[in-house]
Amino acid sequence: MERTLFTEDHEAYRETVREFVAREVTPRHDKWEEARWIDRDVFPAAAAAGVYALQVPEKYGGAGESDYRYRVVSAEEIARAHATSFGVTTSLQDDLVLHYLLDLTNDEQKERFLPGFARGGTIGALAMTEPGAGSDLRGMRTTAVRDGDSFVLNGSKTFISSGIMADVVIVACKTDPDAGSKGITLFLVEDGMDGFVRGRKLDKIGLPGQDTAELFFEDVRVPRANLLGEEGRGLHALMSHLPRERLGVSLQAISAMTAVYEDTVAYCRTREAYGEPLTALQHVRFELAELATEIDVARAYFDASVLAYNAGRLSDVDAAKGKWWISELAQKVINTCLQLHGGFGYMREYPVARAWTDARVQTIYGGTTAVMKEIIGRQLAR
Amino acid sequence: MERTLFTEDHEAYRETVREFVAREVTPRHDKWEEARWIDRDVFPAAAAAGVYALQVPEKYGGAGESDYRYRVVSAEEIARAHATSFGVTTSLQDDLVLHYLLDLTNDEQKERFLPGFARGGTIGALAMTEPGAGSDLRGMRTTAVRDGDSFVLNGSKTFISSGIMADVVIVACKTDPDAGSKGITLFLVEDGMDGFVRGRKLDKIGLPGQDTAELFFEDVRVPRANLLGEEGRGLHALMSHLPRERLGVSLQAISAMTAVYEDTVAYCRTREAYGEPLTALQHVRFELAELATEIDVARAYFDASVLAYNAGRLSDVDAAKGKWWISELAQKVINTCLQLHGGFGYMREYPVARAWTDARVQTIYGGTTAVMKEIIGRQLAR
Amino acid sequence: MERTLFTEDHEAYRETVREFVAREVTPRHDKWEEARWIDRDVFPAAAAAGVYALQVPEKYGGAGESDYRYRVVSAEEIARAHATSFGVTTSLQDDLVLHYLLDLTNDEQKERFLPGFARGGTIGALAMTEPGAGSDLRGMRTTAVRDGDSFVLNGSKTFISSGIMADVVIVACKTDPDAGSKGITLFLVEDGMDGFVRGRKLDKIGLPGQDTAELFFEDVRVPRANLLGEEGRGLHALMSHLPRERLGVSLQAISAMTAVYEDTVAYCRTREAYGEPLTALQHVRFELAELATEIDVARAYFDASVLAYNAGRLSDVDAAKGKWWISELAQKVINTCLQLHGGFGYMREYPVARAWTDARVQTIYGGTTAVMKEIIGRQLAR
Amino acid sequence: MERTLFTEDHEAYRETVREFVAREVTPRHDKWEEARWIDRDVFPAAAAAGVYALQVPEKYGGAGESDYRYRVVSAEEIARAHATSFGVTTSLQDDLVLHYLLDLTNDEQKERFLPGFARGGTIGALAMTEPGAGSDLRGMRTTAVRDGDSFVLNGSKTFISSGIMADVVIVACKTDPDAGSKGITLFLVEDGMDGFVRGRKLDKIGLPGQDTAELFFEDVRVPRANLLGEEGRGLHALMSHLPRERLGVSLQAISAMTAVYEDTVAYCRTREAYGEPLTALQHVRFELAELATEIDVARAYFDASVLAYNAGRLSDVDAAKGKWWISELAQKVINTCLQLHGGFGYMREYPVARAWTDARVQTIYGGTTAVMKEIIGRQLAR
Repeated sequence: MERTLFTEDHEAYRETVREFVAREVTPRHDKWEEARWIDRDVFPAAAAAGVYALQVPEKYGGAGESDYRYRVVSAEEIARAHATSFGVTTSLQDDLVLHYLLDLTNDEQKERFLPGFARGGTIGALAMTEPGAGSDLRGMRTTAVRDGDSFVLNGSKTFISSGIMADVVIVACKTDPDAGSKGITLFLVEDGMDGFVRGRKLDKIGLPGQDTAELFFEDVRVPRANLLGEEGRGLHALMSHLPRERLGVSLQAISAMTAVYEDTVAYCRTREAYGEPLTALQHVRFELAELATEIDVARAYFDASVLAYNAGRLSDVDAAKGKWWISELAQKVINTCLQLHGGFGYMREYPVARAWTDARVQTIYGGTTAVMKEIIGRQLAR
Repeated sequence: MERTLFTEDHEAYRETVREFVAREVTPRHDKWEEARWIDRDVFPAAAAAGVYALQVPEKYGGAGESDYRYRVVSAEEIARAHATSFGVTTSLQDDLVLHYLLDLTNDEQKERFLPGFARGGTIGALAMTEPGAGSDLRGMRTTAVRDGDSFVLNGSKTFISSGIMADVVIVACKTDPDAGSKGITLFLVEDGMDGFVRGRKLDKIGLPGQDTAELFFEDVRVPRANLLGEEGRGLHALMSHLPRERLGVSLQAISAMTAVYEDTVAYCRTREAYGEPLTALQHVRFELAELATEIDVARAYFDASVLAYNAGRLSDVDAAKGKWWISELAQKVINTCLQLHGGFGYMREYPVARAWTDARVQTIYGGTTAVMKEIIGRQLAR
Repeated sequence: MERTLFTEDHEAYRETVREFVAREVTPRHDKWEEARWIDRDVFPAAAAAGVYALQVPEKYGGAGESDYRYRVVSAEEIARAHATSFGVTTSLQDDLVLHYLLDLTNDEQKERFLPGFARGGTIGALAMTEPGAGSDLRGMRTTAVRDGDSFVLNGSKTFISSGIMADVVIVACKTDPDAGSKGITLFLVEDGMDGFVRGRKLDKIGLPGQDTAELFFEDVRVPRANLLGEEGRGLHALMSHLPRERLGVSLQAISAMTAVYEDTVAYCRTREAYGEPLTALQHVRFELAELATEIDVARAYFDASVLAYNAGRLSDVDAAKGKWWISELAQKVINTCLQLHGGFGYMREYPVARAWTDARVQTIYGGTTAVMKEIIGRQLAR
Repeated sequence: MERTLFTEDHEAYRETVREFVAREVTPRHDKWEEARWIDRDVFPAAAAAGVYALQVPEKYGGAGESDYRYRVVSAEEIARAHATSFGVTTSLQDDLVLHYLLDLTNDEQKERFLPGFARGGTIGALAMTEPGAGSDLRGMRTTAVRDGDSFVLNGSKTFISSGIMADVVIVACKTDPDAGSKGITLFLVEDGMDGFVRGRKLDKIGLPGQDTAELFFEDVRVPRANLLGEEGRGLHALMSHLPRERLGVSLQAISAMTAVYEDTVAYCRTREAYGEPLTALQHVRFELAELATEIDVARAYFDASVLAYNAGRLSDVDAAKGKWWISELAQKVINTCLQLHGGFGYMREYPVARAWTDARVQTIYGGTTAVMKEIIGRQLAR
C-alpha cells in the first residue's frame, strides 16, 4: 500500500543518507565484515552527515530531532545497501544508548557525554545481560558496593553490543541484594577505569562487523558522579526504555526484510529456468505474493507504531507485539528469499545469504519472542 | 494499539447501531438461523436506523454518506453480537450491490431502484458465478441475445447471495461470445420476470440465515431499460468493483475474529481448570498473545486500507492483499478460539462454534485466496 | 509409500467391510444424519458381519480377534464412504468401551455384558467428563457413596458419546473425596436404573448422526455387582486405557483425511477452470503434493503405532504424539481440500464440507492437543 | 517410538563408528572447519574402519555391504558428534558418487577406480549443475565433442561438492545438442587432465570444512575409456540415481536434527532461568514436545524408506516426499532449538549455531523443495 508516513523533509533526508551510505559505507563494509571491526572514523563522518545521533539536543551539538521517522529513513537506507553490521551498530547507539543518556543523566553528565556522542566520537554500550541469567534481570549477580564517595563493581556481562568499541558502558548492578526489583542501579563505566576488562569478541553466526563482547568488572571503582539516574531505580529505567529498544529492533527487521525482498523480486524476474524467468512459475509468484502481502501488513503496523511512538502513546505491549511479530516475519521472508535463490542463496557472496545469518538475532535480542509473548499474555490474563 | 481511525461522529453512530442490534437483531437472530431466512421487516427498520444503505444519495432518500468508516462501525457492532447472517446480508447490499447501482445506473434507473434500496424495501443480488466456471468469468455460459428492444437471457448462476430474497438481480451475461472480455454485459433482472426461476436455497456449512441460491434464466425477456452500464462493458464493471467487495470481506473477517477473540479472552479468564483460570496456563496466555498481536497487525493494515479507500487510493492489489491475509487470519483466530473452548467449542450453542462455520466462506467468496495471490503475483512478475 | 501393514487376511476382511458399508450404511447414512440418530438395527447387522466387536472372546460370542489391523481396515472402509457418524460410533464401542469391559470386568460381569456387546445388541458409553472440569479428572464432582451393598451416585456428566443410546454407561465417580487420585471408582450404570436421566442430545458442529449427551445421576442406586474394577482404582483404569482410545482417534483422523484427500485429487483432475483441469495449476499440484506427503508421513507413524500396539509396546507418550499430530494434520488436510473445492466446498452436499465439520472434534476429544503436549513435555522435563 | 529398524549387528557397528569418530574426527573437526579443508588422511582411516565405502564389492577391496542401515548408523554417529562437514563429505561419497561407479562402470573402470575408493584414497565428485541452469538439466551448456578416440570437453560447473578435493569427477555433458534428453553423456574426468581447472572454493553459509567448488573444462581431452555408461544415456543415469541421493539428504537431515534436539533437551533441563530449569516453563515443554513428535513422525517415514530402499521398492516420488519434508523439518527443528538457547544460540561456539548454518543447504541440494513438490504433483496430476 502507498505509504503515508513521510513528508518531503523525510524524503530529502533519505537522499542525504543514501548518498552517505553509497560513499562512505558500501565501499568499506565488506572489509569491516572481514576484519570483524568497523573503522571508528566512519562514526564521526556519519554523525556529521546526520545519519545518526540526530536527537542530541542542539546545546550539546546535535540537531535535537526527536521525530522517529528520521530513524526509520536512516535504517531503511542502510538496509537497502545490506550494510547490516553498520546499521545495527548505529541503531544501538540511537535506539538504545542515547535514550539512557538523554533521559537519566544530570546536567554535568550531559556536558560530559552528549557532545562526544553528537560528534560520533563517543560510542556507548548497555551492559545488562549476564552469562547465567539471560532475560531474568532479578537474577543478576554483578554488584556495586558503596565505598566512600564511589562504588566498587564486581561481576561480568555478556552479549554486550559494541562492548569492545565502547568508550562508555552503562552497567546494571545490584546495589542492594535484598531489595529485589528496587536494588538495581545503573553506572557509567568508562574506558580505562581500573579493573574494567574486555573479554572475547564473540564469534556470532552473523553480523561479523558488529562487535559483541563479554565484559568483566574486577573491583572497578566508579565515582558517584558516574551513577546514572537514581540509586535503586535501575530496573525501572531498564523497563521504561524497552519500548524504544524494541521499536528499534522492529525497524531493523522490517528494513532488512524489505531490502532482501526487493532484491529477490528483481532476481526472480531476471533469473531464467527452463527458458523463462522464475516468475513464470506460479509457485514463485505465489511465494512472492505472500511475502509482499506480509511485508505490507507488517509495515502498516510498524508505521502506526512510529506515529504512536512520536505521540508518546506506544505502550510496552504494543512494542512487544511489533517486536516479536515483525522479527519472526523477517526470518520467514529472508529464509524464503534465500530458498528462491537456489544454490546461490547458500553462498556468502549473495547478500541474501548474509542477510539470513545477520537477521537471526532479531528474535533473540531486545527480549526473545517468548519474553514478548509473556509480556502480552500477562496483560491479557489480568 | 490504540486506534486512530474514528472520530466522535463515528463513535456516536456506533451507539446507534449497537442499540439497534440489541433491540431488533439479537432477539431474533437465532430464529432466523433456524428458519434459514431473515424476516424481511428487519431491513426497512435497519435502513431507517441508518445501519445500512447510508450511502444512497439524499435525493433518493439516503444519507449520501460515502465515508467507509461508517460501514466499519456497522459491521463491527453486528459482529460483536455474532449476528453474522444478518451482517453478511447487509454487507453484500452495501459493499457489493449498492455500488453497482450507484456507479452504473442512468438517472431513470436510479429513480427506479435507489429509493427502495434506501428504504430497505428492495434487496439486490449480484449473479456472476456459474456452476461450471467458478472464478473464470470468461468461461461463463449465460447468454443474452438482443431481440428488438429487449434481450433474451438464458443460463444459470450459482452461489448467489440473497438469491432467493432479491427483488432485483444484476446478472452477467455474454452478449457477444466472440468478443472475449468485451462480450460481457450486465442486466437488471427483476422479481416476477417470466422465466426467472429461483433454484434451491443451498445448504451451506454456516450462515444458515443468509440465503444463497441457484438462479435459472429461461428465455427471460429483459427490456433495454434494464441494461446496466454499457453493453460489452460488464467485465470491466465487475473488475472495477472488486476492491470494494474485497474490502467488505476483509471487514467481515476482521470484525468476526475480533468479536470471537474478545469472547474467548473473557472465557479463558473465568473458566477454571485445575483450580485456576485457563489464563494461568502459559500456553493459553501465549496463544492469546499471538492472536492479540495478529489481530492488531491485521487491523493496522485494514484501517490503513479504509483511509486509502476513502481517498480513492485503494488499488486492486492492496485490496487483494488484505482480502486473503485477513480472511485466512480469521480462520486461524476463530479456530484457535474454538480449541481454547475445549469440548464446548464443538457445541453450536457457543457462538465460537457457529462463528467457525460462518467464517469458513471468507477465504472463498469474493475471490479465493489463490485468486488473490495470482492477482498480486502477476503484478510482481511484470 | 507402499504399505506393508496388511496381510491377505486383512485385505479379504476389507472386502467384507466394504460390501457391508455399501449395502447397509451408505444408503441410510444421510437419513441418520438428518434424524440425528443412527437406527439401532444397524449395530447387530454390523456385529454379525464382523465390522465391529470382533475382539470379544469366542466364549462370549465374539471372534476373539485382538489384532488391531482389523480395526484399521474397518475404520478405513467406513471413512471411504464418508459415513463418519457411524464410524465414530463403532470406534467408540471398540476402541473405548469394549476395552474397559474386557479388562476390568469379573467373570459374572463378562457373562452379563459381553454377549450383548458381541451381538451388537448392547451399546456402551464412558462417562468421564463433567461440565465444570474438562480434562481435569481430579476435579470431578460426581460422587458415589456406599450404602449397604450398593452405592448411591449423584452428579452429572457431559459430552458423553452415545450417551442417549447407551444401554450401559461406565461412570467415573469420587468414592473418597480425600483420597485424591485414589478416590475415583468406576461403575456400570444401566438403562432404567432409577435416577439415571439422559439430558439433551447436544447440538454439535458436525457428526449429527452420532449422539452426544449430558447425563444426570440423581440418587442412582448401583449394586455392588456393578462396580467396575477395584474401588479407588478408577483413575488408574482411565489412564491405562487412554493409549488405546487415542490410537482410535488417530485412526479416525487418518482414515477421514485419506478419504477426503482421495476425493479431492479426483476432483482436481476432472474439474476444469480456464479450459484445463485444476491440476494444470502449479499451486494446486503443490498443495496436493504437500498433502500427499504429509498423509504418507502420518501413515508411517500410524502404521508403526499399530504394530507397536499389537506388540504391547505403544506407550502413553507414543499414543499422545500420534493423537495430536495426526488429528491436527487431519484439520489441515481437510481444510485445504475444502478450499480446493472453491464454493462447492462450503456446500453440505459435498462430502468434504461435512468431513470438515465432522473432523473438528478430533483435536479435542480423547484429550486436547494441549493435553497431549503436556503429557509428552512432562516426560521430557524429567 | 521404540525403533525396530536395527539388529544387533547394526548396533555393534554403531560402536565402531562412534569410537572412530571420537578418536579421529572430533579432535580435528574444528581445525578442519577453520582451515576450510578436511585432511585427506582421515578418509583412508575411515575407510579402513568401515565408516564409509562399505558397499564396494569384496573383489575390489570393500565389504560388499549394501544394507542401507549401515549408512544410517554411520551418519547418525557422525551427526551426534556434530561433525557435519565430515558427514556430508562421506555421505556424498557413499550416497552419490559410489553408486554411479558401481552401476555404470565397465569392468576395466571398476578395476581402475573401485579399489582406490574402497581404501579411501580416491575421492569422487559429481558435476551436474551449471551456473546458468540450476535444476534444469536440459539447459546445460557443457559440451563434449568426439575427436577420434576421445572427447573434447568445454564448459563449466558450479556447486560441486568435493570439487577441489576430487581425484575423479563425473561430468555431465551434451554430446548431441539436438537430441534433447538423449543428448547427455557422463564422463570420468581425472585430476591432472589438461584443461581441467578448479575454480574458487565457494564461501558458503555453513559447512566450511566441506569443499564446494566451481570447475572449468577448457578443451579437456577425455579418452573414450573414461566414458561412464552409454553415450546419450547420461540424463537417464542422473535421474535413476536421484532416489538414493535424496535418501542420503534425508539421512543427513534427520541425523542432524536428532543430534541437535537431544542436546537441546539436555540444555533445557539444566539451564536455569528465574531459579528453575527452562523445562519448568510450559512453552518450553510444549515446543520440545512438538519437536519430539515431529522427529518421531519423520523417523517413522525415514525408517520405512530405508526398508523400502533395501527391498528395491523406494520410488522417485517416495524419495522426493521424504527429501523435502524431512529437510524442511530439520530447518524448523534446528531453528527452534537455536531459539531455545537464547543468546547462546547465536554464538558459533554452540553446536546448535553451526548446525543451523550447516543444515540450511538441505532443502536446496539434491533438488530443492519446489522441485520435489513438482515431481510429486506431476504424478498426482496424471
